[in-house]
Amino acid sequence: MAIEQRTDSLRTDSMEAFYDELASKHMDALWRGRVAGTGTNGEPVVPYAPYRWAWTDIRPFVDRAAQLVRPGPDAERRVIQLIHPELTALRAASHTLTANVQLVLPGEIAPSHRHTTGAIRFIMEGTAAITIVNGEPVSMSPGDLVLTPGWCWHGHINQSEGPVMWMDCLDRPITVALRQALQEPYSDELQPATTPLGDSTARYGAGHLRPMGTHATSPISPLFSYPWADTERSLHELARFSSDPFDDVAFDYTNPLTGGHVMPTIGCRIQMLRPGVHTQAHRHSSVSVYHVFRGCGSSIVDGVQIDWEQGDFLTIPPFAWHEHLNPSSDEAVLFSTTDAPVLEALCLYREDAYTKTGGHQEVKA
Amino acid sequence: MAIEQRTDSLRTDSMEAFYDELASKHMDALWRGRVAGTGTNGEPVVPYAPYRWAWTDIRPFVDRAAQLVRPGPDAERRVIQLIHPELTALRAASHTLTANVQLVLPGEIAPSHRHTTGAIRFIMEGTAAITIVNGEPVSMSPGDLVLTPGWCWHGHINQSEGPVMWMDCLDRPITVALRQALQEPYSDELQPATTPLGDSTARYGAGHLRPMGTHATSPISPLFSYPWADTERSLHELARFSSDPFDDVAFDYTNPLTGGHVMPTIGCRIQMLRPGVHTQAHRHSSVSVYHVFRGCGSSIVDGVQIDWEQGDFLTIPPFAWHEHLNPSSDEAVLFSTTDAPVLEALCLYREDAYTKTGGHQEVKA
Amino acid sequence: MAIEQRTDSLRTDSMEAFYDELASKHMDALWRGRVAGTGTNGEPVVPYAPYRWAWTDIRPFVDRAAQLVRPGPDAERRVIQLIHPELTALRAASHTLTANVQLVLPGEIAPSHRHTTGAIRFIMEGTAAITIVNGEPVSMSPGDLVLTPGWCWHGHINQSEGPVMWMDCLDRPITVALRQALQEPYSDELQPATTPLGDSTARYGAGHLRPMGTHATSPISPLFSYPWADTERSLHELARFSSDPFDDVAFDYTNPLTGGHVMPTIGCRIQMLRPGVHTQAHRHSSVSVYHVFRGCGSSIVDGVQIDWEQGDFLTIPPFAWHEHLNPSSDEAVLFSTTDAPVLEALCLYREDAYTKTGGHQEVKA
Amino acid sequence: MAIEQRTDSLRTDSMEAFYDELASKHMDALWRGRVAGTGTNGEPVVPYAPYRWAWTDIRPFVDRAAQLVRPGPDAERRVIQLIHPELTALRAASHTLTANVQLVLPGEIAPSHRHTTGAIRFIMEGTAAITIVNGEPVSMSPGDLVLTPGWCWHGHINQSEGPVMWMDCLDRPITVALRQALQEPYSDELQPATTPLGDSTARYGAGHLRPMGTHATSPISPLFSYPWADTERSLHELARFSSDPFDDVAFDYTNPLTGGHVMPTIGCRIQMLRPGVHTQAHRHSSVSVYHVFRGCGSSIVDGVQIDWEQGDFLTIPPFAWHEHLNPSSDEAVLFSTTDAPVLEALCLYREDAYTKTGGHQEVKA
Repeated sequence: MAIEQRTDSLRTDSMEAFYDELASKHMDALWRGRVAGTGTNGEPVVPYAPYRWAWTDIRPFVDRAAQLVRPGPDAERRVIQLIHPELTALRAASHTLTANVQLVLPGEIAPSHRHTTGAIRFIMEGTAAITIVNGEPVSMSPGDLVLTPGWCWHGHINQSEGPVMWMDCLDRPITVALRQALQEPYSDELQPATTPLGDSTARYGAGHLRPMGTHATSPISPLFSYPWADTERSLHELARFSSDPFDDVAFDYTNPLTGGHVMPTIGCRIQMLRPGVHTQAHRHSSVSVYHVFRGCGSSIVDGVQIDWEQGDFLTIPPFAWHEHLNPSSDEAVLFSTTDAPVLEALCLYREDAYTKTGGHQEVKA
Repeated sequence: MAIEQRTDSLRTDSMEAFYDELASKHMDALWRGRVAGTGTNGEPVVPYAPYRWAWTDIRPFVDRAAQLVRPGPDAERRVIQLIHPELTALRAASHTLTANVQLVLPGEIAPSHRHTTGAIRFIMEGTAAITIVNGEPVSMSPGDLVLTPGWCWHGHINQSEGPVMWMDCLDRPITVALRQALQEPYSDELQPATTPLGDSTARYGAGHLRPMGTHATSPISPLFSYPWADTERSLHELARFSSDPFDDVAFDYTNPLTGGHVMPTIGCRIQMLRPGVHTQAHRHSSVSVYHVFRGCGSSIVDGVQIDWEQGDFLTIPPFAWHEHLNPSSDEAVLFSTTDAPVLEALCLYREDAYTKTGGHQEVKA
Repeated sequence: MAIEQRTDSLRTDSMEAFYDELASKHMDALWRGRVAGTGTNGEPVVPYAPYRWAWTDIRPFVDRAAQLVRPGPDAERRVIQLIHPELTALRAASHTLTANVQLVLPGEIAPSHRHTTGAIRFIMEGTAAITIVNGEPVSMSPGDLVLTPGWCWHGHINQSEGPVMWMDCLDRPITVALRQALQEPYSDELQPATTPLGDSTARYGAGHLRPMGTHATSPISPLFSYPWADTERSLHELARFSSDPFDDVAFDYTNPLTGGHVMPTIGCRIQMLRPGVHTQAHRHSSVSVYHVFRGCGSSIVDGVQIDWEQGDFLTIPPFAWHEHLNPSSDEAVLFSTTDAPVLEALCLYREDAYTKTGGHQEVKA
Repeated sequence: MAIEQRTDSLRTDSMEAFYDELASKHMDALWRGRVAGTGTNGEPVVPYAPYRWAWTDIRPFVDRAAQLVRPGPDAERRVIQLIHPELTALRAASHTLTANVQLVLPGEIAPSHRHTTGAIRFIMEGTAAITIVNGEPVSMSPGDLVLTPGWCWHGHINQSEGPVMWMDCLDRPITVALRQALQEPYSDELQPATTPLGDSTARYGAGHLRPMGTHATSPISPLFSYPWADTERSLHELARFSSDPFDDVAFDYTNPLTGGHVMPTIGCRIQMLRPGVHTQAHRHSSVSVYHVFRGCGSSIVDGVQIDWEQGDFLTIPPFAWHEHLNPSSDEAVLFSTTDAPVLEALCLYREDAYTKTGGHQEVKA
């Protein structure tokens, strides 16, 4: 190799010509630019603003969608998507997880299909709808968490008297970024049930027991339903004993065969802010997409107070300082999803407590 | 090294003299003997016979012990030990796990202590006794499983109106074989409670949830109580969906933070034999020590039928073929402990189905 | 909730108006569109074409860069990036991993910095350059693999007589997609060495030994250098015993404390195609970015034959059928990086053998 | 249940009669006795004394055994066992691991068999013997570690000109205590080789590489040979960088697919005490069985100095304080086996540094 050291005369070589020639061969010079959003002094960068969607905005659209389209003929799903204003290209409420609202009216079916994208449902309103997951019927009532892990067949049916509505959260931005988003329609409208209601619950759901000889073979939970009655009782029980400084009374939902997150791509959390509580601030590299299931309150995110009430959705972006308040006299219950499982698996999870001014941020006017 | 090949003349060297000289220097010749119990053709060897202790035998001794000794002054614990007739040197119901019956009368205290030996309690009779485990009071009612893992302080107190009786199972033969059996008395009679009743249950016990940010740091369960109400409901739920060919309706108790066994040395199981069921036979390298919690039935072990009824204990040794029958019209519920976690960790677990004559052994007359 | 069933008259509601109103509130209707690239019949979709960069194209640019910019004053690194023509927005050779060529001339320093983005270097030419990783000097000679895991300080210095050139591969598209790409310059030009050359190699690199009491605490390899001499010897040893039907003689580099991939985001592989070999075809959900270290040959990717020779780079996209040929009489050695560790952790890894026509694709004219 | 509280009059019931009746029903009273060896104040108990076997004692017996028995016809193996004077019932050098010396003369075969008991060999003298492990021939030269994991067929053959001698270490006391010691002779004298010499080494042994697509499926190492040349180089490399306060320059041998111990029951270690070194004292719950491979020195065990030289064996029991000295001007190299993997798996491993008098024990006269 005979590379001579550069000389000033050679510098007359047009840099622009160089760049053009590189581009013609599908190359570039690293030093030309820096991809936006990278911190340059080691400090984490909050990549986009927090955003709240008001239930008073969402609800009318859901009602109108009920009149405009039917699942199946008109639309694979009757779903209103929440699109973060800075993430329109991703069509998602956050850069890794979507948050949408789905409605199924009495008598309707959202046809069975499957996709590598994993999904969870958190039921907001209505009772007794059914999701059939890989042949297993799973009931859907308010506060229930229902899993439809990646590549599981799933369809929804509402045989009740009233509409059923839930939060959908999918890891679609992750599977899209990784070029893994495959999808397949079921050969019929709705996959038939092959077990009675409650099969996975019977196996993995009651007590801390597993069928003799069962072992975890994957990080994906084999339990498809986490009923609200259990969750609510757990919140009240835990409240008697302990609380988290940043999230008050808060749980991660778990895979009963591993004790870890319910899926490798989506973590699910439930937290109760007791009346009068004001948590300390912290930040972490994971994103949280919140749904206000009960009550009202506020979150202070990077110094800005964001009020929320029942039905609202709120994205708290990575690295944003945040703390929660419940100045009301009723409990507030927040369900949220997080990409923490992904960051933990890739050694990218980080967390900091806010240590200034007693752990509380100053609120900007 | 200059070793000449042996010659016949050298053979006159007295072998016995050789062995004596070896012994004098604390050595031996491997070829002299074989340690008993080793199979020589690759077939597993059943190391000792199955053994059943009848409740009608045990109970009178427990009653007399109530009159003979008090926990504390007379005896650290008022415990009747089950000693397998072939394992008297180990003073244990099996070669790895003990099975004993403990009685605490109203007003009595079994003083706090700790030991590296892990223990579980399965409550047989009485209500509302308390075990204080590392400062946490845990309630004890029939059918509850209570853990006191290795090196946790634990004492028992009965503040109820009646006697409380339970099965103790300790991994003591294991810690003794490994020369790890340390013990320490608590500085006072009973370690005081430092949390309200139900702390670990609130954190890890309800639903499939873990306090936000909690992760497993050990294979030992942080949950100390597995209440019967949950267990019983689970058995009936599972019975609606599936059964195990060898154990009918059967669960392993789990550590909620790992999904694995409750302890690295003791696995706990609950199984329900439905009326009329006759399971297929199998064998495994692990031992099982059974307590009949409800009902009656039989087990056929290596061709011998062993009948059992409520209160009985039964040791099924490693590698013995066994199948279970419940010819009655009531459910039978068997609690058991097993050393399978140890064998799994050491790659020594093996299991075989009995494939002859339809999966059922011929019963010897 | 009082939603009336849709009626035809209501259908006159303008769908477009509905969509506009949704957009004004940062929402959308799921049924409007489908994100490009999703398979709709369950069949994997190859998201972009394979692409080869010829060394005869790359090399002249590297030479000119040597004359145009200096690392430090003019450019943080003198690096020519390979930009896949379909991935210009990502500025990367693949959707998850970059592949670039870096040059450091005698006497030059590429200043120390750190970033959450993990990186590996595979040395192409030159000898005796040094990378200082968290204070440990690591030598760089042709065929060596050098790791600079995420958030490790690293700088490069060339104190040899000749230029040193290597392949850089970073997981930057992943950390960018996950919004985790932080960066920090070191306070000085080059972080000083705090250990002699070879510290991590002494601890973890020779034999299958780990310093007494060491345990894995992370999936990131603590070993920073995988010298070519060991790798080459291993390839020739393995060739004597076995081969892989799809990749001939092929290894994954491992983290010595876990036996797993060297990093949770980047897998590194070395493979030797023996003279005359023609492998069978398979496809997998992971991407591979190849560098031809020695020899020449061809890969047939989705029916198209792509010839390559020493110095070339080749991206084989997810789900593309591919097989390799070495019709020459010399060994060909391919180094590659893969995002398989990410897909495995997220349960998205899939692999299929090509079973038609004897395992070989038909080559398109 | 109608148990009356004990009264003094009832106390006249003969305790001895009670115990006799219990015994007749295969029960006992827990309070009667305490199993020997249990600490009662929480302090670890050293269960037996350290013991050293001098090579000057062992060697003549090995020589005589060469003349007295042949492997095969006279003895399954020509092995001199080291029997700790306090462990004669176990016929072993420690309570968990045996340490024996095996000799195979030129032309001899130690016939193939297998047992659930795992074994390792550390070669002391001679060259070029072969162990065939599951059909793979593995060479045996001084300083090599050779594994014959549980239930692997293995036989030895010496086709060299001179005798070959090695240390055998088996986990037999563990498999016996767990009643898992099965054994099976091979159908012929020696299992034939089905691969060339070096197969597992080619796959797992060179560099930190694993054949593409290989993953750990068990904690048992798939690598059967750890050659001395690699080990020795590693010791000298590590010595340049760091040392352990208690063991000087010391490594654990590892399973390349997990980074953990080579077997779940036996940990293998190599350590070099550099000239002049005097380590600090510590104690741990695991036992160590040492073989002095090179050099001479001393260990102070619970205050007693034990001198050792090349060829000697030394058992350091659980919980004994120990420190090592090499007052000579040559390196001393100690190979040892340990049951630490078992204790770690069962959460029974403990370790303490000696903190008094500068970390060194007072030596008893």
